[in-house]
Amino acid sequence: MRRVVELIAQKRRGEALSEADIRGLLAAYTRGEVPDYQMSALAMAIFFQGMTPAELAPWTDAMLHSGEVIDLDHLPGRKVDKHSTGGVGDKISLPLAPLVAACGVKVPMISGRGLGHTGGTLDKLESIPGFRTDLSVTAFIDQVARMGVSLIGQTGEVCPADKKLYALRDVTATVESIPLIASSIMSKKLAEGIDALVLDVKVGSGAFMRTEAQARRLAETMVGIGAQVGKKTVALLTDMNQPLGRMVGNTLEVKESIEILAGGGPADVRALTLALAEAMLSLGGVDPSLAATALDDGSALARFADIIEAQGGDPAVCEHPERLMAAPRREAFLAPKSGYISAIETTRVGLAAMSLGAGRATKEDTIDPRVGLEIDVRLGDAVKAGQPLLWLHHDDRGVDAARAHLTAAYEIGDAPPPACPLIIDRIE
Amino acid sequence: MRRVVELIAQKRRGEALSEADIRGLLAAYTRGEVPDYQMSALAMAIFFQGMTPAELAPWTDAMLHSGEVIDLDHLPGRKVDKHSTGGVGDKISLPLAPLVAACGVKVPMISGRGLGHTGGTLDKLESIPGFRTDLSVTAFIDQVARMGVSLIGQTGEVCPADKKLYALRDVTATVESIPLIASSIMSKKLAEGIDALVLDVKVGSGAFMRTEAQARRLAETMVGIGAQVGKKTVALLTDMNQPLGRMVGNTLEVKESIEILAGGGPADVRALTLALAEAMLSLGGVDPSLAATALDDGSALARFADIIEAQGGDPAVCEHPERLMAAPRREAFLAPKSGYISAIETTRVGLAAMSLGAGRATKEDTIDPRVGLEIDVRLGDAVKAGQPLLWLHHDDRGVDAARAHLTAAYEIGDAPPPACPLIIDRIE
Repeated sequence: MRRVVELIAQKRRGEALSEADIRGLLAAYTRGEVPDYQMSALAMAIFFQGMTPAELAPWTDAMLHSGEVIDLDHLPGRKVDKHSTGGVGDKISLPLAPLVAACGVKVPMISGRGLGHTGGTLDKLESIPGFRTDLSVTAFIDQVARMGVSLIGQTGEVCPADKKLYALRDVTATVESIPLIASSIMSKKLAEGIDALVLDVKVGSGAFMRTEAQARRLAETMVGIGAQVGKKTVALLTDMNQPLGRMVGNTLEVKESIEILAGGGPADVRALTLALAEAMLSLGGVDPSLAATALDDGSALARFADIIEAQGGDPAVCEHPERLMAAPRREAFLAPKSGYISAIETTRVGLAAMSLGAGRATKEDTIDPRVGLEIDVRLGDAVKAGQPLLWLHHDDRGVDAARAHLTAAYEIGDAPPPACPLIIDRIE
Repeated sequence: MRRVVELIAQKRRGEALSEADIRGLLAAYTRGEVPDYQMSALAMAIFFQGMTPAELAPWTDAMLHSGEVIDLDHLPGRKVDKHSTGGVGDKISLPLAPLVAACGVKVPMISGRGLGHTGGTLDKLESIPGFRTDLSVTAFIDQVARMGVSLIGQTGEVCPADKKLYALRDVTATVESIPLIASSIMSKKLAEGIDALVLDVKVGSGAFMRTEAQARRLAETMVGIGAQVGKKTVALLTDMNQPLGRMVGNTLEVKESIEILAGGGPADVRALTLALAEAMLSLGGVDPSLAATALDDGSALARFADIIEAQGGDPAVCEHPERLMAAPRREAFLAPKSGYISAIETTRVGLAAMSLGAGRATKEDTIDPRVGLEIDVRLGDAVKAGQPLLWLHHDDRGVDAARAHLTAAYEIGDAPPPACPLIIDRIE
């Protein structure tokens, strides 16, 4: 490898780095031999100049090999996971993982926690009393072997170089770089030992990518990395201009997930769960039409109960969701005037739930699993002044802040907005 | 001031920073409260997004006030300095400072050392036996008051924030940013307490700015900063597609400077010295036509002798330049073929001199004041195979490397290149 300052200059000029230089650089960075001030300058140069597919493949591969790589090769059958770029009310992993496993494809799912306006799968699962997401890698692999699915958090030693770079990007305004986002996601997912991956790339007012062009570029970049490293990857571009489903908040979203697994639940959550399941089943070599059946015949819900039991939780919540903790108070947020729900600043809805304690403003915050929002209206609905738009489930924490966010979030106009499809495109 | 990460993001998006944010940021950086990884990311964002005049003025002012500011207000008359962006054989400061002082304008000149292919005024002066450039600020001011001129090196406490940022830029490939170069130069010069400044912005194969467009942009940026902070600044764009004069190396350049001060010397060195002197005299409120007279009547040379004596050197070198140390060996570099000198990669000529010991590859290198190059030919000259193009003055160090650089530097073609004016433009 040449000197780091030369690599930075090369990228700054818009020239691609060689595979050898990228591998050398990231190996040195992992060993702590490249100072942060050089990596942050490089990250900013990458923000402006991008990375080519030929750079992204070794970059992602070096990140993924900077730490522990889970080996599932000895398990028969294809292992497929899903990753969402994050939204509001996005509980899809909860019904999706047991559903796909119930159809016969193995789902070794490693998820994250919520931060800012988005929730996290781990927080939602942990709102089930007793549920543990901190299994050892051995226990995780055993469970995937036994019941085809396990849902855990990232183990300490997966992609340490990516973790270190992410922390640096966070304080140097270099998070919003599509190649860096794409390689960060892909390195973590590919370290799980999966054979294929389905990406749910969200677009709109509640997503990190607010325009379809940005989201498409991110999706194409990730699908390209998958192809380069030989892991079949499919991305769905999906709408995030309003919360998914009716519930935002941890136990509230578990309840909604159980409704979906029992064959009910909001239409959008069911539709997206099925679309993602069908994509995963196709990649896993299983007939995608099995998915709807597994939701309706109770086999997906049964698999969810198995997971809960295997991971230390109370599986009876599947039959008796009322066993989940509930917030002490529930109060309405009323329509300030009559009209149509013409736009939703969905990030603000997420921040409202966060204010109540459903999420974290900083990594150190603790969450209250019981609180959140229950939403009665969707984009385009006609509403009357004084009608409840949604309900705050709370414990007296952050109610004023939540109401301020909601007031700013819901726009009531004279006409419904143009309809937007839930699933915008499929990229593979 | 807002959080540094927000300022980086703002600059990254191409938005200008407020004066308050810039002053707050640089004050915090000076106090050591902004980590290098944030400053390097910001520098890279500035590389791509630039800075507006409204940002550059407080940036420069904050840098200049990060340390000691020399106060010359109590000295009568205008104080004018010159700064060159650096070239090969650029000894102009040596004849220029005494010349301008001899004409009645005060010249408080603070210079630097050579690095890479360029020489430094301090190194040249110190090749005069006994000459000291490390005067205290008080001694410097006294000498300017007494004889109108002093030539010293940067004192420890001038622009410490700029020094720190420059060292960081050097290892993060962010040196080549025109607003950062411009504000770095201007902050250091304005900390000298001058009233006006003449800039010699060099263009071509031996300059940092290789194209006229770049050099013009740098010149305009610096002149703009001068205007914003109320210090009249004039820039000359001058040719650096071949070495200035016949001599490259420390004592060799002192000898050539003495020739100029005695009314002789190479035409290009005399022309540039007079052009810069005339610009300084105009800014100093003195009739510019005095400059040529002061070279020809010996008054400029007498002032140089005064400076040498005041700063501890042997003033007799002015009458007896042979007292300066000479390299033990002198050998020719011959034309490999016949033709015209059609192009000179001037940076290579500087590196050849550096290889012999006239300059430094790294800051820690020691230089040999005696060695260097004596050049017989200029661009466009007709040469015959085997004719000496130039002479290496050496002490057996680096001769092979120097010859390799020279072989690559001098291009002999079938026709002379188009003539290029020495003074390309004047910007004010």
